[in-house]
Amino acid sequence: MGYFQESIETMDVDKLKALQNKRFCDLIKRTYRNVPFYKKKLEDLGIVISEINGIEDITKLPFMTKDDLRINYPDKLLAVPQSEIVKAQSTSGTTGKPVISFYTKHDVSICEDCCARAIVAAGGCKKDVCQVSFGYGLFSGGAGLDGGSQRVGCLTLPMSTGNTRRQAQFMIDLGTSILCSTPSYAASIGEYIDKNNLKKYIKLKAGIFGAEPWSNELRNKIEEELEIDAYDIYGLTEMMGPGVAFECSQKDGMHIQEDHFFAEVVNPEDGHVLPNGEVGELVLTTLTKEAVPLVRYRTHDLCRIYRDKCSCGRTHIKMSKLLGRTDDMVIVKGVNIWPSQVETVLIRNGYTLNYNIVISREDNNDFMDIDIENSKRILDDNQKEQEIKYLINEFKDALGIKVNIHLIGVGTLQRSEGKAKKVFDKRNLYEGEC
Amino acid sequence: MGYFQESIETMDVDKLKALQNKRFCDLIKRTYRNVPFYKKKLEDLGIVISEINGIEDITKLPFMTKDDLRINYPDKLLAVPQSEIVKAQSTSGTTGKPVISFYTKHDVSICEDCCARAIVAAGGCKKDVCQVSFGYGLFSGGAGLDGGSQRVGCLTLPMSTGNTRRQAQFMIDLGTSILCSTPSYAASIGEYIDKNNLKKYIKLKAGIFGAEPWSNELRNKIEEELEIDAYDIYGLTEMMGPGVAFECSQKDGMHIQEDHFFAEVVNPEDGHVLPNGEVGELVLTTLTKEAVPLVRYRTHDLCRIYRDKCSCGRTHIKMSKLLGRTDDMVIVKGVNIWPSQVETVLIRNGYTLNYNIVISREDNNDFMDIDIENSKRILDDNQKEQEIKYLINEFKDALGIKVNIHLIGVGTLQRSEGKAKKVFDKRNLYEGEC
Repeated sequence: MGYFQESIETMDVDKLKALQNKRFCDLIKRTYRNVPFYKKKLEDLGIVISEINGIEDITKLPFMTKDDLRINYPDKLLAVPQSEIVKAQSTSGTTGKPVISFYTKHDVSICEDCCARAIVAAGGCKKDVCQVSFGYGLFSGGAGLDGGSQRVGCLTLPMSTGNTRRQAQFMIDLGTSILCSTPSYAASIGEYIDKNNLKKYIKLKAGIFGAEPWSNELRNKIEEELEIDAYDIYGLTEMMGPGVAFECSQKDGMHIQEDHFFAEVVNPEDGHVLPNGEVGELVLTTLTKEAVPLVRYRTHDLCRIYRDKCSCGRTHIKMSKLLGRTDDMVIVKGVNIWPSQVETVLIRNGYTLNYNIVISREDNNDFMDIDIENSKRILDDNQKEQEIKYLINEFKDALGIKVNIHLIGVGTLQRSEGKAKKVFDKRNLYEGEC
Repeated sequence: MGYFQESIETMDVDKLKALQNKRFCDLIKRTYRNVPFYKKKLEDLGIVISEINGIEDITKLPFMTKDDLRINYPDKLLAVPQSEIVKAQSTSGTTGKPVISFYTKHDVSICEDCCARAIVAAGGCKKDVCQVSFGYGLFSGGAGLDGGSQRVGCLTLPMSTGNTRRQAQFMIDLGTSILCSTPSYAASIGEYIDKNNLKKYIKLKAGIFGAEPWSNELRNKIEEELEIDAYDIYGLTEMMGPGVAFECSQKDGMHIQEDHFFAEVVNPEDGHVLPNGEVGELVLTTLTKEAVPLVRYRTHDLCRIYRDKCSCGRTHIKMSKLLGRTDDMVIVKGVNIWPSQVETVLIRNGYTLNYNIVISREDNNDFMDIDIENSKRILDDNQKEQEIKYLINEFKDALGIKVNIHLIGVGTLQRSEGKAKKVFDKRNLYEGEC
């Protein structure tokens, strides 16, 4: 049972709380002083900063939401001069405003430490070969786990996503022992290996899977197929990327890195903090992030948090697997997608907003079908085929994934007087708890 | 005029040569001691290691070639235990053996330093926003320049390749001042910006372009279109990735990082070292690389090297722009491609080796067309269309780029009794010098 930073990961809970307390007070002062938007927000609410003296006062502070990020796009929430920023990562949203996460050198270092902790918790050490099959580039998954893996001293293979044949080839040629990817991609690689009778050449022992919700059922399937231990990891671009929380050997919830993040679970309706163990919306506060500190950030992820005496020795509080989302975002192929992005493309191309999104999963692959009412009245079959090809490209640009397009008759889709249900997610992603 | 590491970049030439001398002797001892293949190679040639006492003895040593890398694939040239390796990068070759470059922590650090030098030479400082539009993942370009940019303290935007609309959006939203990409992609971005009247929002001042050969004509076009200074950068995955050499403010040849690389130019036919200023094949020796040291590695790149008193103040020797290749490799869309890779796909799919590759460039985009004799005798038009689609996918997997496929009649292509010419490169890539 290894740790990357034992003195922090197994820190006495009282000491951990004292550390959080100190960091929290510093965070609030920094943020108030350096982020005009935040200062004004508190002042408008009549909050006096000198009355925030410890983490027990956190409930006096307002939430921050994705809207705060959107209003302040791209960099108006920076708490340090731009010259101190060394890196940005981003969600995919091209049409709607993407969310950009900024990092100072210190922030990069923290993100990599947290990912390194996750890798060591999954049994990783400097003798391991760690294949990072998350996306690189703007997506925070690849960079974070790559940095963490190098920090552990693993031989890091930056495979990025796609080209399953090559993934398997490198896995064999270099003796990959740890795979980091989305769980559905891990399942696909497993199927490829099985189909091509390659299992005898594979040395995998563990997998670290995240960036999309996954059930214990899928865990069992992957563990069986690849003969590995599969661990969950949690994060979000807004906070820092991957590594906010990760599973230990117990595979029963993810330890939230409490030295860097303070977690609350609230009632998504009224925002009241719920007792540990109850299901609600996860709200996170960055205790150490310099570039863009976030206070009480609403993640929209539903889960439980609980502090048990974990036999791995880690003292940090745990969060359950994700139990759902409070908003209308869906994660398809590991990519965050909002109906608003779809609508932007439709409007730009002269369509009305009569559409449906159907998401399905077959053999662990996600599919997204969009039914669009043919309001441009394209009649000719040939024209229609051209238009569909064009729209597929438009959506690929806007969403970052390939979708299937169906141009259907005007009036075909059901009208609603209230908020119409536009997204039909036919996958069975969440545990039965919620 | 800035430097990232002034004391090294402007080092007195005699001191630089003394440093190279010391590092070279250490390199040879390390390599002989730790790489059995290299030890045997020297012993088979009757070379006594104790007689190698300085860099003037380098010509007594044999060349290393890509074949040495292939024979020792994947990791038999490692000069340190695998547990010391923290990273691998690779060329694309899926079917032929790819070339893998391994890095210790120290090697990563050197690569990033060299890229940081290139960025500072192009005017970069911590106030800049540096958009890295090279590929990430296994390809060494993105990771190297990303690391270098963070080292300089630039706000680093890891865009990776593709999605020109998003490239331009981020360029505008974050005020990108330095663009790193292939020169042809820079030209494409320039055209997109022009077509969409976005120039007034663009704050670019410099570009660092490499990974494919480019002419001064293309430089002029890019500089005019984007209103920037465009600098060349040179590197290869085998040595370390990007940053082996880079252009300074003089834009007249690239300074080779002589503290890390020793350069010779040889007659490609007989291997004799040529005097400075003559055109020949560039041969590089890694003076500091720990993971896989390479001694007298034949790059197959044709150029001149020359040491002039550069008004930028740098003392390191210069290499000219690339003047050609000595082997049959072609670089298409920044990706290395060998005919052998094409042949592997053909054989796997039941075709004979009667084929032609035609490479062309239009509006700064590369195109690769493959004519294949229809030896599987697919007759039906519908079947043929399906087969072509299938082959396009096969080649995409194998080469990493999209090609155009033409299934043509058996016997259509000219037969040759000697080594047939299979590759017709219709681009005009090289300067007129050679």
